[in-house]
Amino acid sequence: MQRRTTPGSSRRSEASRRAILTAAFELAGEVGYAKLSIEGIAARAGVGKQTIYRWWPSKGAVLFDAILSLSEGPEGSALPDTDDLEADLKAVLRATVDELADPRFDRPLRALAIEITQDPKLAALYAERLDGPMQELKKARLRAAQKAGQLPGDLDLDVAVDLIWSPLLGRWLYRSGPLTHAYADAVVETALRGLRHNTEPAS
Amino acid sequence: MQRRTTPGSSRRSEASRRAILTAAFELAGEVGYAKLSIEGIAARAGVGKQTIYRWWPSKGAVLFDAILSLSEGPEGSALPDTDDLEADLKAVLRATVDELADPRFDRPLRALAIEITQDPKLAALYAERLDGPMQELKKARLRAAQKAGQLPGDLDLDVAVDLIWSPLLGRWLYRSGPLTHAYADAVVETALRGLRHNTEPAS
Repeated sequence: MQRRTTPGSSRRSEASRRAILTAAFELAGEVGYAKLSIEGIAARAGVGKQTIYRWWPSKGAVLFDAILSLSEGPEGSALPDTDDLEADLKAVLRATVDELADPRFDRPLRALAIEITQDPKLAALYAERLDGPMQELKKARLRAAQKAGQLPGDLDLDVAVDLIWSPLLGRWLYRSGPLTHAYADAVVETALRGLRHNTEPAS
Repeated sequence: MQRRTTPGSSRRSEASRRAILTAAFELAGEVGYAKLSIEGIAARAGVGKQTIYRWWPSKGAVLFDAILSLSEGPEGSALPDTDDLEADLKAVLRATVDELADPRFDRPLRALAIEITQDPKLAALYAERLDGPMQELKKARLRAAQKAGQLPGDLDLDVAVDLIWSPLLGRWLYRSGPLTHAYADAVVETALRGLRHNTEPAS
């Protein structure tokens, strides 16, 4: 995102940045995106508004960075690749299940989802800055499986990614059933082998 | 839903019922669920508030009935069964794509989705009265395919339904890509044959 930090940024400004991202994340969960404000974030983080505006152009940009920053594991952003596609996908989906079960993540992500649903411009921004890059990481993992001969070369990777990840999204947003590790595993298994496994030969 | 019409209901009260459902549907799209009111629906439908309360306990119940009523095709509510599972599922998903591309449906359904996302009680009501029965119809079609030997008997039907229908939901809510007939077809094909088709033998 459009942070304007320089290589000389002090440890103190890194601490401010983290305080701002944490405040944005917490407040989005508490008051919702509509009532989230730069003023509120600044007050919670103990910084001046200008400190925030120096790094981010809008509250949306702060929240995106907050979600990006707090979603990243220590190992960086690529999906795991142990050469066992099924195990790797299960690990990723289980981690998502755990994240969504955590109110620290559930509430701000739900606040963002609601705004995205009703605001096409925010949806476009989300697609460009957050979902798009995530989609690329997911496709990169599937592409590696294609190269390893574990998935067919003509697989539509966009559709494949949606098949694997959308069920969790739907179950989370609509609370239509328990969001568990067992569900994550079943989604991965069923997506990989297909509904028709064992019955009709692949064409 | 809890309508209290009797077999003797007149054509006039059927006309009122339809006017109320249409008004609820239109208003939900125009003002959103939060601002939807029994008063507003009554005014738009040209009936008294008591006429609405005679048939429905709340605005939520009216909107649910409106969505149920206007979503139903003339052929009733069962999914098509021509013995060609893939063709039937594509027809259903294409119809959903068409429905979501129609602002008459997109807007009230989006209003409802937003409320469901932030209101666990409404999510439970939706699951019980709308999504649950729809889920049963979808599972009934897959069960028929199991009986016809077209799907394995041990398939988890809840997971299977989510795999087929969630990608459309995600793409619609987040506007993450074009929601087209081609996409609907690709989702059905990929869900049925699985990501690994042709590559790894089914276990």
